[in-house]
Order: sequence, then C-alpha cells, then structure tokens
Amino acid sequence: MGIPSYADRMAGVSGSAVREILKLTQQPDIISFGGGLPSADSFPMEDLKSILKELTDNLTPGLLQYGETEGYRPLREEVVKLMATKGVNVAVDDVLITSGSQQGLDLVAKSFINPGDKIIVESPTYLAALQTFRMYGAEFIEAPVDADGVMAEELDKILASEENVKLIYMIPSFQNPSGRTVSTERRQAIMEVVRKYDVVLIEDAPYEDLKYTDAVYPCMKSMDTTGQVLYFGSFSKVITPGFRLGYSIASEPILSRMIIGKQTCDLNCSVFSQAVLAEFLKRGLLPDHLKKINAEYKAKRDLMLKTLEETMPEGITWTHPEGGLFLWLELPAHMSTNDLFLKAVEKKVAYVAGDSFYAAGEPHNAMRINFSNATPDKIVLGVEKLAEVIKENM
Amino acid sequence: MGIPSYADRMAGVSGSAVREILKLTQQPDIISFGGGLPSADSFPMEDLKSILKELTDNLTPGLLQYGETEGYRPLREEVVKLMATKGVNVAVDDVLITSGSQQGLDLVAKSFINPGDKIIVESPTYLAALQTFRMYGAEFIEAPVDADGVMAEELDKILASEENVKLIYMIPSFQNPSGRTVSTERRQAIMEVVRKYDVVLIEDAPYEDLKYTDAVYPCMKSMDTTGQVLYFGSFSKVITPGFRLGYSIASEPILSRMIIGKQTCDLNCSVFSQAVLAEFLKRGLLPDHLKKINAEYKAKRDLMLKTLEETMPEGITWTHPEGGLFLWLELPAHMSTNDLFLKAVEKKVAYVAGDSFYAAGEPHNAMRINFSNATPDKIVLGVEKLAEVIKENM
Repeated sequence: MGIPSYADRMAGVSGSAVREILKLTQQPDIISFGGGLPSADSFPMEDLKSILKELTDNLTPGLLQYGETEGYRPLREEVVKLMATKGVNVAVDDVLITSGSQQGLDLVAKSFINPGDKIIVESPTYLAALQTFRMYGAEFIEAPVDADGVMAEELDKILASEENVKLIYMIPSFQNPSGRTVSTERRQAIMEVVRKYDVVLIEDAPYEDLKYTDAVYPCMKSMDTTGQVLYFGSFSKVITPGFRLGYSIASEPILSRMIIGKQTCDLNCSVFSQAVLAEFLKRGLLPDHLKKINAEYKAKRDLMLKTLEETMPEGITWTHPEGGLFLWLELPAHMSTNDLFLKAVEKKVAYVAGDSFYAAGEPHNAMRINFSNATPDKIVLGVEKLAEVIKENM
Repeated sequence: MGIPSYADRMAGVSGSAVREILKLTQQPDIISFGGGLPSADSFPMEDLKSILKELTDNLTPGLLQYGETEGYRPLREEVVKLMATKGVNVAVDDVLITSGSQQGLDLVAKSFINPGDKIIVESPTYLAALQTFRMYGAEFIEAPVDADGVMAEELDKILASEENVKLIYMIPSFQNPSGRTVSTERRQAIMEVVRKYDVVLIEDAPYEDLKYTDAVYPCMKSMDTTGQVLYFGSFSKVITPGFRLGYSIASEPILSRMIIGKQTCDLNCSVFSQAVLAEFLKRGLLPDHLKKINAEYKAKRDLMLKTLEETMPEGITWTHPEGGLFLWLELPAHMSTNDLFLKAVEKKVAYVAGDSFYAAGEPHNAMRINFSNATPDKIVLGVEKLAEVIKENM
C-alpha cells in the first residue's frame, strides 16, 4: 500500500509562485524583478561581522540552549524601544519574536480561523498571506480600495453585513504588491470602524521603515485604544532576512494564543540569532543604516520610474510608491501577464503576474516589479527588455 | 468591541506544561529533572567558535539572504551522508531542513490531518507531538506496548478495524518519555504491518545517537521499501538546540506537501545557522563529539540509576534506558505525581508528571525524569530530595 490522502487544506494549494520564481530566477543571466528580496548590497556586513565576532569571542552555552517561546528578552526589550519611536507604547510582554513575520501570519490564523471564517483583505494583497490563511480554511472578502487605501465606509458595510469576519489584513505602508500607502486620515477612519466590531486588524508593516518621502504615516497600532491591532514587524527588509526574525506586537488575548501556537510549531527562535539582532539594535545602528539603504532604494526606485517613462508604450500605467520594494504595473485590459511571463523569461527578465495577489485570482493584466534587488544597470536593461516584450505583444 | 472568538483548535489547549516548567525551573535554586534540555556542558563550544569565526571572517551576503524552503544545499548534502551511516540511502531531494524536528511534526500534521483523522501513538508518548497533532483536530489511538515496544499484531488489528488512520507516530529509540527502545525484530514486524496499509509511519529519532550501549538498533527508515516512513532527525540533542535545526527524510509524496506547508510557516530556515551546522558536519566532528557526550550522559544515567537504587522506597519502579535523556518512574497506583509536584518544588526539585504524556491523560502515578541537564552532584541531591518527598507522601 502507500501514502494516505492529504488533508483537505492541501487541496488546490500549489507551491508559492514567488518561491518557484525565486528558484527559476537564481539562474545568473536572468534579471529578476520577481522576488521580494532586499538587495544583498544593503546588508550591514561590517557591523554584523563585528557583532558576530564579539558574540563568538564571548560565546556562552546560554546562547546555544533552548530559549523561551516568547523570545530572547534583550531582543524583546529592543523591540519595545523601537516601537516607542513609532509612537507605540508597549511592554516586553506585548512582544513575541517570530521566525520572520511570515510566522506571525501562520500563528494568527491558527489562533482565530475556523474553516469558513472570513478575512477582509486589500485588493490586491500579499500572496503568501493569502496562501497561509487558505491553509486554515479562511474565506476572503476583498475590500474596495481607492487611492488612499481601503475605504472606511465600505469596510463598515462589510463588517455590518457579514458574519464570522475574524480578521482584517492590511499592509498600510508601501504595500506589497501595489506600492500603495493608506493616508493618515484613512487610517484613523478605518480604526474608528474597527472599534465598532469584534475583529482583529492585522497591520503588516515590513516595509514601513523603507521610506523615500518626508511624509509621515503613523502606524495604525499607534492609534489602537482597544487592543485590536496586531502589528507585524520584520528585520528581514531593514537589516537582513538571514536570521529569519520578525515580531508580533499585540494585546494579551491575541498574543497568548499565538505563543501557544508557536510552542507547537518550533518551540522558540534561535537564541543566537536573536542575540545578533538585539546587539545590532542595542548599538543604535539602525537609524543610520536605514538612512543609507533608503538613499540606495530611493535611487533605484527613481531609476526604475525614469526608465519606465522612457521605454514603456502608451496605455501602460504604474504606481509611484513612496517606499517599500515594489511597483505595480498595469497593461491594457486585454493583455495577460501570465501569458507574457514565459516570453519575458525568454528575454531574460522576470516579474510576478498580478493575479496571484488577488483572493479571487483576478484581474490578469497587472504585474509586480521589484526595484530593490537588481543593480542599477540591470534595472535599466530589465525595464528595457520588459518594454520590448510588452510592445511585441500588444 | 474587541477580540473575536478563538479558533476551535485552541479550545482546551493550554501552554505546554513542559515549557511552563522550563520557566519555573529557571529559578537557579531548583534542581530540574523536568525539561528535556541537553546539558549546556555538552555543546562543542570550541568547535562552534572556530566555525563561527571562520564564517564571520568570510561572511558573504548569500549567508544573510533568503534561502530555499527545502534548506541550504550543503547542509542537505551532509544530512544525506549522515543518513548513509545509518543504512539509509537517500538523495538531497529527500531532505527537508526544518526549524527543529518540532516543525516536522507541525508540517506532517498540516499535510495529512483533517479534523477527526486518527493518529496511532505509543503510550505514553512525546507531549508536544500530542499538542501539535491536536491543533489539527487529530484523534489518537494508543497502541498497546510491551517491553519491546508497540505490539505489531495489535497495530495490525487497529489498522484493519479503524478508518481514517493517517499516521503512526513512534520514537523507536530511547523514547521520550519512557526511555523504552523498540527491539530490532519488533521494528521489522511493525514495518511489515505498515506496508499493508495506506499510512505514514513517523519515526522521530532525536535521541537515536545518544546511545549508551553496544547494541545496534537499525532505524526503521532503513527498512522502508515503500516510501512510507518519515524520519525526523534533530541537531538539538547531539550538537546544540541553539540554531533550531532539524531535518525530515521522506519520499516525494510526503515531503512535497511539507515543503508547501513550510512556505506558509516561515519560508525557510536561517541560511547562516544552516551553514554553521553544515560546516560542523563537513569537518567530521560529529562522531568524536558523540563519543564524548555519550560518555558523559552514560555516567549521568548510571549515577541517577545508582542513586535511585540507594534512596527510593519499596514499590517505586523505573526504566533503565539504553540511551536518550529520560527515565520513567512509577509510583504505587494510588499516588498522583500531579499532587506531588508542588511538594517537590517546595523541596526544590522538579519533574514532569506522567499524565501529560498520555493521549487520554492517564494514568497519574508516573513521572518523567531527565538525567542529562543537571550536574552530577545535583543529580544525587535531586534524587535524594525526590525520594524524601515520595516517602513523606506514600
């Protein structure tokens, strides 16, 4: 005999398109705008070397032993300080260290979602969040969006009319994939709606500090008076994804269940890895490092925008993100970015087709382009190739 | 308003007793036989320092970037070689690196278990496996066990009569919590039964190499002709838990679904951490390191057995494990190790009450005692205190 049947949650789930593209695009001759990788040049190599050297010289068994599920206390303390700079006053017990903020998505779904429960998402939204939530049998409601983000009155209507809406999932700042940012007024209006219902608002903020504007967007957690906002932070985009560390900030009713969930997932994050990032933050290196990488990423964004202006034919539009890693490009409605993908790869340029980012899998004429990972000359060359493919297939 | 209702899977789930005990027993004056921690003295500090120094000196951005979900290829290659020494011939594609073998438990349940599906477990069995499987709505069938382990004919009867049995979960060598080992003949008999049914046998083997006997117990994966065995290995007990790394060895139908599951859980394990352990294995350090720590653990086991002989009153029995980290101690049937626990903590000694290790929560007169973590003088003192508490409450 052999292998039994898979769980229902595996039905129709395929490997993440983004992860498969990551593999495909590891071929050195491909210019990949597909992944969401930070630039390898952005990592603070010398500072991390200095910290690793110090930790190695003073290595104690405690850094190599099992640790508390909630996280390594010195790192949680640094996260508390970091959140204070964002106007969020929390205690160490409000912080859970996770294996990337991706794990936060898994743990909150595990904590709240029964099959058939509903999650309100932006349209489009982060692909891997949809995949994670689907694993728990979540159904999605796409919230109508305008230039300022999710429309508060529409959100209110959905919450008033739908049952079993447990979570709202948003990336308010420099969204993946659209690059869109929710305005401050809209954030406040959304929070007023949230407070009317029994619902958790997930504020996923991995790009929040990758900001190429002087505009200030207070995080929604800073407006949270009822403990309903679950804030996900990540070190992956601002320091390095190499240690697989992120954090969840939430009130006790949310965090306590996520901690129980984490116990069954991986017990705790690497204490050694947590000690590296705790020391990075403790040394006060983050603000200057952000200045440096934001200048680099801003230059790359500007270069991509300029090259798009210069090369793209009429009828193609794209977003002008104020931060983050992604542009969102729309082709004429009759074109399919899925159909175009292999032709683009033939020309040695890659992107992610837009339909993966919609809960319902529509529409087909958009694509996500990353501007952080490629070198400047490859940004120019890649956009030129992309424009060629588009022109040839219009 | 506020927080919505939790998912059904959270009903009745409390924090892991073992993890809570870990916290309690971090008080320095408690002698803890409760956790399953390897001894901090057992970590190969100088070798790890040397490797960390080398990796730091030659740090590349690739070690700090996102990696493949399946794992860092050099580490997977080392695992292939390690498995070959156990008579298991697999390829790199049969290896998935996980965040401790704990994550393997989560991923296999995610892949196969619908609410109401059944998992056959040893009685008693690993507490955190039960908790993880419960999160997916698994029901348990406790397999009858004799001195040689799960009885093959009884296993056959269960599989023949029960529907929706997806998984069999076993720790064949030096089991947690009982210290019991399945004999070679029994392993073969069990494998014959497994081949008759559509079922996956999980062979959890974190203690397999912590062996204090010349007896040889081939792993069940080495007897697997049908791809039905999923083998979990861990670096936590034999090198250090500090990097949170384990591995799953399985055939494609099993591993492919676990990889999809891992994508939604944490994308990938830390490449840097994987590089540390890959280098440790590549340098060929494991065999000598195992000799060293097995000599230490054997001495601790012997000391604990000797002190138990000298101090325990009539009517108390315990196992004599040939490896691993744990003894299983049974009091007279009328006594409850739960009732005794706080009295033991008052005397500054801790253990884990046995009922947590039973799927059905029975019986109440056993306890798990760890002999790897305490120093020799504390082993003696702790067992003496434990004997006192037992005598005072018989």
